[in-house]
Amino acid sequence: MNPTPLATVILSALLLQATVSRADDKAAAEAPSKSRPMSEILAASKAEEWRTLDPANLLYLDLPAGQVVIELSTDFAPKHVANIKKLAKQHYFDGLAILRSQDNYVVQWGDPDGGEEDASKAKSLGDAAATVEAEFETPWSKTIDYTRLPDPDVYAPEVGFSNSMPVGRDPATERGWLTHCYGMVGVGRGNATDSGSGAELYVVNGHAPRHLDHNVAIVGRVVQGMEFLSALPRGTGPLGFYEKPEQRTTISRIRVGSEVPESERKGLEVLRSDSASFKELTELRRNRRDDWYVAPAGHIELCNVLLPVRAR
Amino acid sequence: MNPTPLATVILSALLLQATVSRADDKAAAEAPSKSRPMSEILAASKAEEWRTLDPANLLYLDLPAGQVVIELSTDFAPKHVANIKKLAKQHYFDGLAILRSQDNYVVQWGDPDGGEEDASKAKSLGDAAATVEAEFETPWSKTIDYTRLPDPDVYAPEVGFSNSMPVGRDPATERGWLTHCYGMVGVGRGNATDSGSGAELYVVNGHAPRHLDHNVAIVGRVVQGMEFLSALPRGTGPLGFYEKPEQRTTISRIRVGSEVPESERKGLEVLRSDSASFKELTELRRNRRDDWYVAPAGHIELCNVLLPVRAR
Repeated sequence: MNPTPLATVILSALLLQATVSRADDKAAAEAPSKSRPMSEILAASKAEEWRTLDPANLLYLDLPAGQVVIELSTDFAPKHVANIKKLAKQHYFDGLAILRSQDNYVVQWGDPDGGEEDASKAKSLGDAAATVEAEFETPWSKTIDYTRLPDPDVYAPEVGFSNSMPVGRDPATERGWLTHCYGMVGVGRGNATDSGSGAELYVVNGHAPRHLDHNVAIVGRVVQGMEFLSALPRGTGPLGFYEKPEQRTTISRIRVGSEVPESERKGLEVLRSDSASFKELTELRRNRRDDWYVAPAGHIELCNVLLPVRAR
Repeated sequence: MNPTPLATVILSALLLQATVSRADDKAAAEAPSKSRPMSEILAASKAEEWRTLDPANLLYLDLPAGQVVIELSTDFAPKHVANIKKLAKQHYFDGLAILRSQDNYVVQWGDPDGGEEDASKAKSLGDAAATVEAEFETPWSKTIDYTRLPDPDVYAPEVGFSNSMPVGRDPATERGWLTHCYGMVGVGRGNATDSGSGAELYVVNGHAPRHLDHNVAIVGRVVQGMEFLSALPRGTGPLGFYEKPEQRTTISRIRVGSEVPESERKGLEVLRSDSASFKELTELRRNRRDDWYVAPAGHIELCNVLLPVRAR
């Protein structure tokens, strides 16, 4: 039993080797040094490494327990995003409910009367479309922001980040897509691929169900308040649906950020995925070297990369 | 916009091709057929495909909201498991608390007075050891049950299942380890690798933090009642610790299954990871073919494999 962390052991071995063979400071210099902790990396980050979120592409979702903020992606699902914004501006979501919380899968919200039993009871979508063309992946335009993650992936030929959202990319087809990582928000749909409108949305609350990639339009990610969705009691019906109406959590309202009074806005910023600090944070999780870790992983999986958000 | 699922499109294309070139039923026969749904696979499974959990290796954890059952792994962490069972039999855990719930990471429980500020206030470990030798990985003995998952993995040379628990394996070093998938239970420790005893345990409540593999002793997995841990309110202190004692959830008790009266036992069975039904379920998630899915993933990531549990 060796209580000494492996990083220290490696360093000692290299120093010893240098001592035994010849005096060579290079070996020690090449040995892994301790990582800066996340707090230090973030504190030392530069202002220009952060991107201020555009209020026009944010949703403020009010629950009794607290407020959730979602950033929408106009790059990957522009038609769905436009429809969701239209719905929110019409106050469509206000008074609807969390319908489903399935452990280690998704939390889903929408119109409790929106089922297929009696369409006449469903809340009107007003000016918004009832069906939107599938946006499961998109042609990879050169204007799309992209920082590739050098690590392998089980599901996609290559993965990375676009404006601090996790994406998959296929260089062969030149197409890209948002991926089902924790906190990503997608559009519920029926069997027809254009049957989703954005009136019913879900968020991933467990291990990334990446098999859903390419099958659903993902529209964005939760950037603040995820804990108010993830800590909801699980529904006891099939697929985690709540069995009784009184078990559902009511959504007070969902507003587009640009319609929220300036004094109530959160002023959120995300760490740019093309920044040096982002790279250092990712490396910290890939190969953490400190007094606790004994075996750095050497790799990082897409959905394990931290995507820091802060209030200005 | 094509509202027809891709599986149907592929089938039609193959049939069309057969019609255009020559009458050849083989093409149609080779086209993917629809998957049986999970419920059908499970309903059709044979009795011998299920393994009855040994009460001697179960923990029954009672929370105000409900009961959690954990299966312990004597293959991968025998020393920690023995110490945890000793602690439970001494009623060590009864009256302790959930100390931490960090969103998308872990829920952790133990002695609220077990911190380093004032060791005299900590609850006595009785006959149990205060430190246990690190069991972060284990030499791969031929008696270890193993079904390899043929899919790639970001963190391990190869992965699979041992008695329905997710494992990593390195054929080069002939060593194996339990992996940090959702619901897996590990041993909190300090900087020294032997500083964990099992008196403080955590469970993964989000995307698998696989970078913790090889750094912690994993002792088992939650087989029932995970929702009572995962839906706990997140702590608002650093690392998700609860800031006020009254925010903590009290653990009524933790009992070893063999000390639970027979009438109260759950009679749980897990689907054997070497069974045909397990293989079919995994394939269902790897390549689901039904009226909803348009793009089967082709692969499955270790922690996305379903590990069914049922009550006899």
